[in-house]
Amino acid sequence: MGKVIIEWRPDRSLNISLAIQIEEFIKGRINKGDWLVGDVLPSQRQLAVQLGVNRSTIVSALGELTAQGILEATVGSGTVVANNSWSFLVTKEKLNWRRYIDCGFHKANIPTIQAINRFEFDEGIIRLSTGEVSPDLMPQEAFSRVYEAMSRERIPLNYLEPLGLLELREALGRYLESDGIRVGSKEILIVSGSLQGMQLIALALLGRGSKVFVEEYSYAKSLKVFEYSGMQMAPVITDKKGPTPWMMAADSFDAPSSILYTIPTFHNPTGRIMDTPRRRELLDWCRKKQLPILEDEAYKELYFETPPPPSIKSMDDSGNVLSLGTFSKSLAPGIRVGWIIGPEPVIKRLGDIKMQTDYGASSVSQWMMVHLLQSGLYEKHLENLRQQLKSRRDTVLGYLQAYFADIATWNTPGGGFYIWLKLNRVLPTEKFFHQLLEKKVLINPGYIYTFKGSSYIRLSYSYSSMEDMKTGLQTMSAVIRHLQGGKG
Amino acid sequence: MGKVIIEWRPDRSLNISLAIQIEEFIKGRINKGDWLVGDVLPSQRQLAVQLGVNRSTIVSALGELTAQGILEATVGSGTVVANNSWSFLVTKEKLNWRRYIDCGFHKANIPTIQAINRFEFDEGIIRLSTGEVSPDLMPQEAFSRVYEAMSRERIPLNYLEPLGLLELREALGRYLESDGIRVGSKEILIVSGSLQGMQLIALALLGRGSKVFVEEYSYAKSLKVFEYSGMQMAPVITDKKGPTPWMMAADSFDAPSSILYTIPTFHNPTGRIMDTPRRRELLDWCRKKQLPILEDEAYKELYFETPPPPSIKSMDDSGNVLSLGTFSKSLAPGIRVGWIIGPEPVIKRLGDIKMQTDYGASSVSQWMMVHLLQSGLYEKHLENLRQQLKSRRDTVLGYLQAYFADIATWNTPGGGFYIWLKLNRVLPTEKFFHQLLEKKVLINPGYIYTFKGSSYIRLSYSYSSMEDMKTGLQTMSAVIRHLQGGKG
Repeated sequence: MGKVIIEWRPDRSLNISLAIQIEEFIKGRINKGDWLVGDVLPSQRQLAVQLGVNRSTIVSALGELTAQGILEATVGSGTVVANNSWSFLVTKEKLNWRRYIDCGFHKANIPTIQAINRFEFDEGIIRLSTGEVSPDLMPQEAFSRVYEAMSRERIPLNYLEPLGLLELREALGRYLESDGIRVGSKEILIVSGSLQGMQLIALALLGRGSKVFVEEYSYAKSLKVFEYSGMQMAPVITDKKGPTPWMMAADSFDAPSSILYTIPTFHNPTGRIMDTPRRRELLDWCRKKQLPILEDEAYKELYFETPPPPSIKSMDDSGNVLSLGTFSKSLAPGIRVGWIIGPEPVIKRLGDIKMQTDYGASSVSQWMMVHLLQSGLYEKHLENLRQQLKSRRDTVLGYLQAYFADIATWNTPGGGFYIWLKLNRVLPTEKFFHQLLEKKVLINPGYIYTFKGSSYIRLSYSYSSMEDMKTGLQTMSAVIRHLQGGKG
Repeated sequence: MGKVIIEWRPDRSLNISLAIQIEEFIKGRINKGDWLVGDVLPSQRQLAVQLGVNRSTIVSALGELTAQGILEATVGSGTVVANNSWSFLVTKEKLNWRRYIDCGFHKANIPTIQAINRFEFDEGIIRLSTGEVSPDLMPQEAFSRVYEAMSRERIPLNYLEPLGLLELREALGRYLESDGIRVGSKEILIVSGSLQGMQLIALALLGRGSKVFVEEYSYAKSLKVFEYSGMQMAPVITDKKGPTPWMMAADSFDAPSSILYTIPTFHNPTGRIMDTPRRRELLDWCRKKQLPILEDEAYKELYFETPPPPSIKSMDDSGNVLSLGTFSKSLAPGIRVGWIIGPEPVIKRLGDIKMQTDYGASSVSQWMMVHLLQSGLYEKHLENLRQQLKSRRDTVLGYLQAYFADIATWNTPGGGFYIWLKLNRVLPTEKFFHQLLEKKVLINPGYIYTFKGSSYIRLSYSYSSMEDMKTGLQTMSAVIRHLQGGKG
């Protein structure tokens, strides 16, 4: 059942009583289908504040609508839209969409994630955890040059081949050689970002009941893309270098057509990096187990000192690894272009399923990326981005030292976006999340990346201004101290 | 099991026998994972032709590999990659991807559709049925002006709100008013084309076992997006004006959370148009039945004489209709931008699911569309496109008169892309499809739009040059006459 949100106020200049205006407003919303049967109204007190009227006006309006059978007072939920409201409102039949919404087999995002997706776009909100680059860090000059080049060409914007624009796959193939990955254009599938890549893998390769093995904390757990497709998320024992599946009982890995998902480089959310020996060890173990690895290399290019170890895919000479890449983190998420690398028959199968779901990624975006890669503008941008991110990281580490030294610990990431903040006392609950939201500070609490309570918070230095980060972190430190009863 | 394709020939300049080169080539492909266990090799005769060697060389190479246990001769399928081939090839374990490909619960496209998706990109092929505009019909000048404008702006390419770019939803809202549709920005969801719109509806609103009611011939049947998500396609009795569900037993419509899918304007594949009284009748009946309508208006703007009847959505004052729109047909499919209109809670739910599958459509494409709509360039383009399509339609009708008058009948579409050709004698089978392919002519046979044999062929005058259409139709006419034993 949804909680309705009201962004309307009665008009005091009208010659109609406020209570009647409110009644008509509520009827109108129900009649139009914007409020559904079972939707919960705010409390009378909240309504009075939201609508800017006295509580007695609210009591009068709700009383009238309840008498008419349009609203219903329930025990526990408060006032809700009544089951038989339509018969009072309209003579024609009205479809019960609630039934459809509840019946779709893809479940809704968990409330915290829905709230994050929504509040990110609220004005004045400070985003401490947003996993994308700020518009300042995007190469606007390079984009301008590419748009200009495109304006002089006659770029065909027709449907593309199932695997995506050939020119882009070829340019990517050359680009990936620097990482030691040698693939032909038939071993690359262009997708609309790595989330879609995961969805295609779920639909095309994994069956219901198969397992997706992940680190204890994992970006994949926040996504639900595997779970809602009928797969089970199975945590793997993890140490400072990454997953150690060999520490577990051998029969833990017996589920049919399962896969191990890992972010070896600048892990989301922990910032961890897997060293070369561990990568080899993991690949060897998975190969023996006949367990494919899905490697997510979204942050690979964003190193601050030395380049990270070569990707697991580059060590794979037997087709055991699928590798996901994207321009969402290293360039701009609005481009919506990523890729999957894997053995030819697997890529062909994934391309066929992609044709069944959306006919491919935007050709405009794909041509943009061909230009950016071929011109070298992309690599030039990366050099600049690494410097900027490193400087942001250092600034934020300074703030943490100032406001969190006595109440939390954290890592110093060697690249990527994330600092993994661990509070000394367990706290990040939904209550904490909402208290921060009331103070206009939005975080990604650790619990959205795992299955249980967590004392972690994912911070990101990539998005907000340093000024906002400072204010937001100060606020968060104060809220934590308050919740801990001043005993921080 | 796949049939392997060989695009390699041995090198006669090397000091290595041809048979050994072929052996090493085959081992290499299997070792790399490009050929999977169970994959079928071409016949010895075909191999000799493809590799440009004598048949005796093939016999020698295959014999050696079979003796080594790498290949296997089977009854029926010929030579296949053997189950235990890896143990002979490599010491390390090799993953059996075939098991994964067969296990994914999303099924492969039917072979004819896979062939269409693939052969469309073959050089020299004539495409008689391709449902998209030719690059000539795209407004390249307008695109150039938009890219130029974008090069002067600093367009943010960050993640967008769940419903898509607000500026685009607002521009679309204003544009749709001309069709009598009045919706706010929260009643519009931007999607990556209408196919994705359907996929989201399948995932978010329909449950396993629910039915999707469609006309006897329907674009939706060729898509599999509903079937592979667990829904059942249920044909509705249809006359010249569209579906007539009231002609069927009332309990045919009792499945839970079902939906009726229709293309009321310039229907794909039949070109049919539903008149205003029928639209009202269908809406009234569905409203009484509490059956939502999913209206696909992809071709609405492409009329040749008078504008078509208003969309069913514009007649819907009780939230019974979801309406799909797209720029794929009227502008360029490579933009990958479409939209769904519906009641606010339904749109919100679909937006949440979209965030779980691909985080939204390309921002670049969405900004392009804002520019094209706001500048009026889009409407100017439509005026030109209508004229061009009409003239193409007339030319192709002339070719049909010349080559098909005695063997087929057809309609004269008032808009859209399609002529629905009905052969006087049942013919379009897979054999016919492949015989045409051998002559480099690609068609969409009617059977991909229904569940059974069909004497129809969907022709499209939107894509190929008129010269190619003429050649292709001549070829097709000849092949039909040949298959019918000259008794046309």
